[in-house]
Amino acid sequence: MSHADKVNFREKLSLFSEHWSPKVIGRLNDYEMKLVKILGEFVWHTHEETDEVFIVLDGTLTIQLRDRDVVLGPYEMFTVPRGVEHCPKADEEVSALLIEPRGVINTGDAGGALTAPYESLIN
Amino acid sequence: MSHADKVNFREKLSLFSEHWSPKVIGRLNDYEMKLVKILGEFVWHTHEETDEVFIVLDGTLTIQLRDRDVVLGPYEMFTVPRGVEHCPKADEEVSALLIEPRGVINTGDAGGALTAPYESLIN
Repeated sequence: MSHADKVNFREKLSLFSEHWSPKVIGRLNDYEMKLVKILGEFVWHTHEETDEVFIVLDGTLTIQLRDRDVVLGPYEMFTVPRGVEHCPKADEEVSALLIEPRGVINTGDAGGALTAPYESLIN
Repeated sequence: MSHADKVNFREKLSLFSEHWSPKVIGRLNDYEMKLVKILGEFVWHTHEETDEVFIVLDGTLTIQLRDRDVVLGPYEMFTVPRGVEHCPKADEEVSALLIEPRGVINTGDAGGALTAPYESLIN
């Protein structure tokens, strides 16, 4: 698929099933749009260099912050500000769109077993 | 609303009715997320300095390019590459999310009567 094709989120979501492993499905200058499936609890982590946008497509996502929870349903968006520790969780599977600069690591400063490889569903 | 609140697209869409006038509803570093309502045909224009992302929330949007049309329904996304002339149109009202760097003018190089003022629905 070239840069110049449209992206259907449902079609792209049908191409993978693993959780916590964002797939690049679009680009905007030096930013990337990624689809991710979420189930269970992630690790607490911080992106020191960038904000990170979550847009929920299906399900209910809780983004735990140290001082409160942000609960997102479909057509809801939240920007985690740079430097703010957060930990996403979902009791049932969630599909979400992430927007962030190219090269952001999903586990941020935390690293560990949930660190996902760079995977793209576009050319 | 502060940077740290979530955004519900439906709630924000209920706050305005005019067409072709994007409203900033979120930020990501030096980028902005904007909601826009679209009806009829826009002007042909180009953004020489940046790509521009369209994500359709409701309705069917046609992004006319000089060599083809890109037709987007809900949960579909298209990145108009920088420098590519385009003209959105919709026979029935469309709601869409735009993502682009702060300060992009809706009519790009074309200017004219459809050039929208900078409006934000966040603080």
